[in-house]
Amino acid sequence: MSADPPTYAIGVDYGTNSVRAVIVDNRNGSEIATAICPYPSGDDGIVTDPVDPNLARQHPGDYIRGLQTAVARAIEIARKVPPFAPQRVVGIGVDTTGSTPLPIDRQGRALGMLPEFRDNLAAQAWLWKDHTAHAEAEEITDRAQRSGAPYLNKCGGAYSSEWYWAKLLHLLRTAPEVAEAAAGWVELADFVPAYLTGNTAPNRIVRGICAAGHKAMYHSSWGGLPAADFLDGLEPGLSRFRYEAKPLPADQLAGHLLPEVAQTVGLPGGIPVAVGAFDAHMGAVGAGCRTGTLVKIIGTSTCDCIVAPLAHEIPDIPGVCGIVPESVLPGMYGIEAGQSAVGDLFNWFTQQLTPPTFAGNGDTHAALSAAAADLAPGASGLLALDWNNGNRTVLVDARLSGLLIGQTLQTTAPEIYRALIEATAFGALTIIQRLEEYGVEVREVVNCGGIAEKNPLVMQIYADVCNRPMRISRSPQTCALGAAIFGAVVGGAHPSVEAAQAQMTGVKAETFEPDPQRAAVYAELFTLYRRLHDAFSANGANRVNSVMKELLALRDRVRHHAAAPAGAAHA
Amino acid sequence: MSADPPTYAIGVDYGTNSVRAVIVDNRNGSEIATAICPYPSGDDGIVTDPVDPNLARQHPGDYIRGLQTAVARAIEIARKVPPFAPQRVVGIGVDTTGSTPLPIDRQGRALGMLPEFRDNLAAQAWLWKDHTAHAEAEEITDRAQRSGAPYLNKCGGAYSSEWYWAKLLHLLRTAPEVAEAAAGWVELADFVPAYLTGNTAPNRIVRGICAAGHKAMYHSSWGGLPAADFLDGLEPGLSRFRYEAKPLPADQLAGHLLPEVAQTVGLPGGIPVAVGAFDAHMGAVGAGCRTGTLVKIIGTSTCDCIVAPLAHEIPDIPGVCGIVPESVLPGMYGIEAGQSAVGDLFNWFTQQLTPPTFAGNGDTHAALSAAAADLAPGASGLLALDWNNGNRTVLVDARLSGLLIGQTLQTTAPEIYRALIEATAFGALTIIQRLEEYGVEVREVVNCGGIAEKNPLVMQIYADVCNRPMRISRSPQTCALGAAIFGAVVGGAHPSVEAAQAQMTGVKAETFEPDPQRAAVYAELFTLYRRLHDAFSANGANRVNSVMKELLALRDRVRHHAAAPAGAAHA
Repeated sequence: MSADPPTYAIGVDYGTNSVRAVIVDNRNGSEIATAICPYPSGDDGIVTDPVDPNLARQHPGDYIRGLQTAVARAIEIARKVPPFAPQRVVGIGVDTTGSTPLPIDRQGRALGMLPEFRDNLAAQAWLWKDHTAHAEAEEITDRAQRSGAPYLNKCGGAYSSEWYWAKLLHLLRTAPEVAEAAAGWVELADFVPAYLTGNTAPNRIVRGICAAGHKAMYHSSWGGLPAADFLDGLEPGLSRFRYEAKPLPADQLAGHLLPEVAQTVGLPGGIPVAVGAFDAHMGAVGAGCRTGTLVKIIGTSTCDCIVAPLAHEIPDIPGVCGIVPESVLPGMYGIEAGQSAVGDLFNWFTQQLTPPTFAGNGDTHAALSAAAADLAPGASGLLALDWNNGNRTVLVDARLSGLLIGQTLQTTAPEIYRALIEATAFGALTIIQRLEEYGVEVREVVNCGGIAEKNPLVMQIYADVCNRPMRISRSPQTCALGAAIFGAVVGGAHPSVEAAQAQMTGVKAETFEPDPQRAAVYAELFTLYRRLHDAFSANGANRVNSVMKELLALRDRVRHHAAAPAGAAHA
Repeated sequence: MSADPPTYAIGVDYGTNSVRAVIVDNRNGSEIATAICPYPSGDDGIVTDPVDPNLARQHPGDYIRGLQTAVARAIEIARKVPPFAPQRVVGIGVDTTGSTPLPIDRQGRALGMLPEFRDNLAAQAWLWKDHTAHAEAEEITDRAQRSGAPYLNKCGGAYSSEWYWAKLLHLLRTAPEVAEAAAGWVELADFVPAYLTGNTAPNRIVRGICAAGHKAMYHSSWGGLPAADFLDGLEPGLSRFRYEAKPLPADQLAGHLLPEVAQTVGLPGGIPVAVGAFDAHMGAVGAGCRTGTLVKIIGTSTCDCIVAPLAHEIPDIPGVCGIVPESVLPGMYGIEAGQSAVGDLFNWFTQQLTPPTFAGNGDTHAALSAAAADLAPGASGLLALDWNNGNRTVLVDARLSGLLIGQTLQTTAPEIYRALIEATAFGALTIIQRLEEYGVEVREVVNCGGIAEKNPLVMQIYADVCNRPMRISRSPQTCALGAAIFGAVVGGAHPSVEAAQAQMTGVKAETFEPDPQRAAVYAELFTLYRRLHDAFSANGANRVNSVMKELLALRDRVRHHAAAPAGAAHA
């Protein structure tokens, strides 16, 4: 094969703050060109609302302009790496954050890009971490449970405020003008391939099984999406947003690159474009995901993916976000779990609570990590719950919040920073234990993302807490590589995803091995973590379990009261 | 009286980090001269041990040199304020932190000042916030409870690791060479008047009822100090440190100023010196303490004092540090409560966890307070327990630690700073409610200390949380003024403490009134505070109650293991 002239694939990876385009050599996965375009709107690309801390939106125009900028730049860079030529690009794959749905009109244009909706928050894309729909999520869970409908069986038994239908339901109820103008409600992972291929009209968009199965309660065992009467029972008219086409795995074709779009980025038209999927799922593929290998994509939040052969029946796993046939690899169940804040938790601490000693010069994370690395497990007396952004797995509850316990007058910033890292590690172990309780064995862990790459302290703590070796994906941009792998497969460069993985993925030589002494202390700390975890979650059998929720309810009431006009406040 | 030539009194106030001398005009309490001498040893006067965060000691030499420096400077300043002259000083009063006991030899010299013990941590003064004796405190509580001895009835039912006998017991067990050299164990509040008057030998030291009654389980109803067999049952030889003399209230004479000491500070010999007492108790007197008036001395920690007539029997109040006849005012029960960390808690946050935005320039407390003042109660969703230094009242448990709950990725430093202020206010209300449950009415609150003086945000939050007006003592140095009042009384300038208070104390014109709307939100938050308070204290009826203690036990084990020599660690 090495004698053949090389071909290339493009992976386009939509993150929380920027879009990245990578061009890879289909022979070995080496990345010959990368370009990143940060989203210009809002705060690091996120449009927020000072009154409602649950709100996180994105401007769809950022997606389109970011795509053009990043791909065009990557092509320019690759042109200087012979024998690359745009004509040698055989396929394009796309991954995105999710669930990040947005409303579109009859022609498939994003409403947020139309002049009349440019400044309407409801018309923008509803970023994964938008939690405005928490009441609707509870309502969906309640209705499914009361009606005995099976829709939640494959997503852990609870619907999340981060997901497709909860957000749409909230939109219908709070922004009728947007709802009326909307002809479709589409995941970013499907919106981008639609834009690239011109299949943009609501009834022509190719939907991916990844978003449909993990976020929209799609499953063949109940005939696809939830029934119309279930949806209309939540809100009349909600069923208007059901779609009929069968969602496809990402090794299938979404269409071919539209010449008008191709021209804007310096590519020939007609290149095959793969069906879209979520970043974590394609990242798992880019990290070499296979049976027994858990892939952790560690970013602002964390997504965990593992696969299991379709031939073996997987039981419904309480609290696990999704068990969806072919959402990661063809022929396999894709199982997704995750933690709502990991990098975001560390960033929060460096931005809000780090004193000048550590924040003064250069890299705050590096300064805190260096000091935290000198501490022994347990020596701070601190313990944290990693719930500053709610809990995605295994509690599936956005209305939980952070907790820090054990601080004294001597407690230092590096001690708390370490406790936060440990908290995310305990959260990771909670997920691994839940998977194994239900028969999904976790033999090895492959980590991806900037934190896994750059912070050996985090990886060592994960190894010690989980008492398992931690490996690091060879590629520094696993999600984009995974997207490119699907581009390569739809472009015919490899006969299957597994064949492509064998050539194009790998792990680094260095592995973080658990230390038995540290692991023993962490085993003790973990029992305390689980005690707090159980006490403060909804199933805790004591009166502290509701403290977090009552605090959030009081907060929201006070803030909305303060934001109301003076007349209303006195009414 | 104003036609008489004025006389003066000196108040000497030993704080946690410095000693202050104040010279006051006996006609009206006005402070004509003040001088402060910081303790030079250790970290802000506190000698610590990196291995054991419970340890906090002070070098007794700092007390003597600090006394000489501060009084001499105050005299120098006062000399420029006619008609002051050293000959017009009629009395000296002394207040100190406590329980801060130290070992002395047969001549009454502090062991820590002798060359052979200069660097021995056990031979120094054991500062109030030293918690090394937490196991011994539990043991004393256990033994008193099991034996049915009444000794804890007047101090809330639990002995504290901060107190006299627990510290002495720990010393006997861990530093036999110091125990052997010690002929006496004396509170700083008694040590200083002894030094001033020359009555230094263990059998000649005049003991104050304040320290004896509140910290050493002295009460006339069981014949004074605990019986010798009770003490020796804890540790053979402990009873050697009992003393026979009856402790006295602070309006009594400890002796007369020794000429050799007088010379070092520029005073004539022979001036009457009052019996010593604790800073909070004399501070309460300086703030105008009387029936129905709770005085809060807000410093690094907080001491609350209130009095009730001896004629009315006061029931034992669970968790209240002490109910001691005449410990504050003659003819009254003195009732003491307190919070282990208030200013210390705010200082911890500014020093360890405040980002450059607020810590960069000038006064960090002012910057955080300004931002925190803009927040509405409840709007942050945060709630803290104020236990970073344990809980003094009503739980009497040094082995509790801090807790912060409700943080999200948007949580800011001023929000946490405000939550910490609120936590101390909730702790203050817990004390007020406990007093009132047992028949001690709290009609008004007078606050003293730098925080009460300088931080209107803290006072407004206290008013809103406690739903009572907060008044501020007129004097900025209430403790030293209280000490001077006792000096004035023993010097004959006033016939009684009450008469002196009427002339020499007062409150400021500005009062912080509770706002009904804010008070209503705080009433809701307080129910949540109490839920966490009860869940995490020893009596909580669920499995979270021991998490704090298990974390501290693990911390101590890990740290001691790490500090052990390598050979021992592998043994």
